[in-house]
Amino acid sequence: MTSQMATGPKRAAGGPLNGVLVIDLTRVLAGPYCTLLMSDLGARVIKVEIPETGDDARQIGPFIKQKSAYFMSLNRGKESIALNLKIDRDRQILHQLLARADVVVENFRSGTMDKLNLGWDTLHERHPRLIYAAVSGFGHSGPYQSKPAYDLVVQAMGGIMSLTGQEGGPPTRVGTSIGDLSAGLFTAVGISSALYHRSQTGEALKIDVSMLDCQVALLENAIARYLTTGSVPGPLGARHPSIAPFDAYTTDDSHVIVAAGNNNLFERFAKAIGGRQLAQDPRYATNDLRCQNVEELKHDIEALLARHTTAQWIDILDKAGVPCSPINTVSDVLSDEQVKYRNMVITTPDPIIGDIKMAGNPIKFDRFDDPHTRPAAPDLDADRQRILASLGIETAKKEEI
Amino acid sequence: MTSQMATGPKRAAGGPLNGVLVIDLTRVLAGPYCTLLMSDLGARVIKVEIPETGDDARQIGPFIKQKSAYFMSLNRGKESIALNLKIDRDRQILHQLLARADVVVENFRSGTMDKLNLGWDTLHERHPRLIYAAVSGFGHSGPYQSKPAYDLVVQAMGGIMSLTGQEGGPPTRVGTSIGDLSAGLFTAVGISSALYHRSQTGEALKIDVSMLDCQVALLENAIARYLTTGSVPGPLGARHPSIAPFDAYTTDDSHVIVAAGNNNLFERFAKAIGGRQLAQDPRYATNDLRCQNVEELKHDIEALLARHTTAQWIDILDKAGVPCSPINTVSDVLSDEQVKYRNMVITTPDPIIGDIKMAGNPIKFDRFDDPHTRPAAPDLDADRQRILASLGIETAKKEEI
Repeated sequence: MTSQMATGPKRAAGGPLNGVLVIDLTRVLAGPYCTLLMSDLGARVIKVEIPETGDDARQIGPFIKQKSAYFMSLNRGKESIALNLKIDRDRQILHQLLARADVVVENFRSGTMDKLNLGWDTLHERHPRLIYAAVSGFGHSGPYQSKPAYDLVVQAMGGIMSLTGQEGGPPTRVGTSIGDLSAGLFTAVGISSALYHRSQTGEALKIDVSMLDCQVALLENAIARYLTTGSVPGPLGARHPSIAPFDAYTTDDSHVIVAAGNNNLFERFAKAIGGRQLAQDPRYATNDLRCQNVEELKHDIEALLARHTTAQWIDILDKAGVPCSPINTVSDVLSDEQVKYRNMVITTPDPIIGDIKMAGNPIKFDRFDDPHTRPAAPDLDADRQRILASLGIETAKKEEI
Repeated sequence: MTSQMATGPKRAAGGPLNGVLVIDLTRVLAGPYCTLLMSDLGARVIKVEIPETGDDARQIGPFIKQKSAYFMSLNRGKESIALNLKIDRDRQILHQLLARADVVVENFRSGTMDKLNLGWDTLHERHPRLIYAAVSGFGHSGPYQSKPAYDLVVQAMGGIMSLTGQEGGPPTRVGTSIGDLSAGLFTAVGISSALYHRSQTGEALKIDVSMLDCQVALLENAIARYLTTGSVPGPLGARHPSIAPFDAYTTDDSHVIVAAGNNNLFERFAKAIGGRQLAQDPRYATNDLRCQNVEELKHDIEALLARHTTAQWIDILDKAGVPCSPINTVSDVLSDEQVKYRNMVITTPDPIIGDIKMAGNPIKFDRFDDPHTRPAAPDLDADRQRILASLGIETAKKEEI
């Protein structure tokens, strides 16, 4: 069962970034996630890796037949060439790649590219059409610019951990690497808008994205709540700070998520769970009052929900048009009919380990195919000959470069 | 203290999307977050709101002098015009706006635009250059397409809640509305790459983003872990599933985050906390072994960390080059020197309530200003005359349209 969009009769291969050549110097997560998205959008992504070991993610589990499934899910659709950027000869090959490229992406610590004589000033002078995107822990300026960072560090430093977890409970990380992934996404926005800018003006831009900055940009209403009330927002379990009912509620066998964002939905919800009286209760007459009395409300709701299982309630609430969900595990997600219909679980055929499933591309375009099978991630240096030949670069083995 | 990027002598106003006109039909969060980003990148964003009440976010707190600080932080830099899209006259004004626009963005439930006779087929025929971006709970196809969704619903349905929280603990939401925000980000990637595509081919695209799909795309290594091991990943508190030490550790007064992603960093960390013997311990010799013995490792680390406060440890670990952080509250974030240096807390001057602080733009370009002050969010319909005049649209009051 693959995706079928309602509109758009003609479908083309690739995507809106067809024809764009990206030279990808990134490792592990924020950078590779950005270039994965660009590859899904039709760009050709050439991954430049350190000889012998390659991208650090090749050493991060889980492994299947000694290949990292983690690496594979982040690098499908890309090509690999191994270059040692500390060696002149390989740096010359890189320059030949860059001379033909539209974009270079790197996620080294600030200053590393300059030390390799590959900083923005150098590259911009030599390759004036080349867009340069840097994604790093703290960005290319400011007092922390040379500090090391990992996802967990920016989740903690940027405030999202202070909002995640149970009230008074132990520290809780967002369960996926949102520090890296969000930085990859903002960088992809930066690059694609810079490609548009270049198409209009001829000018290439440098983009400087900091993982910490991106965390701040995700704080959403927490900043406004703090500045307005003066009280420091903390974690609230599963509930929303200013909408009720909007929480996880206990049922006979587990939990159900209910998000009743306005009075109309609250009435519909109350009626559906056999609690018509809740909708008449003066304590719950408005969203503001429901937020003030959120614990009593939860207690009253859970007394009613105890009568059925989660699956039964989902059925009832779905019919009543109340936004609801079970708390799906990863296993549930992969077999969800909507997720499958939208082609969000795709397959890559690996020559050694066979078909591997992974997340698909969530940006659907009417005019482009959304293939169910995407090319597997490359082995280290697997595409060297093809890359050099296709770009008309003569190999170092035979010639001076 | 505002941002100063190292490179780029000339600085221009706006950003790479200068000259792009966006007609924004979106409400509350996913859509407005997308168009906020586009505004920060230089696009002109005209927000079309329902007469009288406007965007629902105007009714969501916190409030300052009866104005929603929540609305204001999501809609700074945009212009507002009130149109009732169910009325012919107003729909004609909308068409005149769309005739001059590059992009229309909407986040109605699937089918709503068709009912208004404003679906993609209609708009594409009438305005062939117009890029159409839709962001909805479940997308414009599949069995759930007409179901209602809120952030919490897709967080639960898409699996991220099953990975967030304490082992065996109660359900835990990511503390900000990552279901909405990530969909807004993916939509922004879609739009800016579609602008590039149009610049190359002349063709306008329809973009269809589902909040649920975006959650699946954020599951990261959880899918690979489940498919490789067959065991369903659950929440792990603050720790990483496959790297150790990578967790929140108790100190004398609170917690410290340590992310020691490889053997070298582990040795450096062990030495810095006076636990050189840990680096020699065969139970902790490799990252794999440290993950297998992660609880003993945490116990041994916390025994050493009990000797000092978090602030003291940050000092020590910073000097040793070990990635670390305190768990910052929102208040800490707003006063962090790196956050301030990078201009991630900006000000908008509101005529009624004065200066309001909010998150800045995390995509920094060398060639464009990153102003510390951005225009305030508009009152409902505040820009009607200016919008119509600037686009050469004659007003409905005086003329037949």
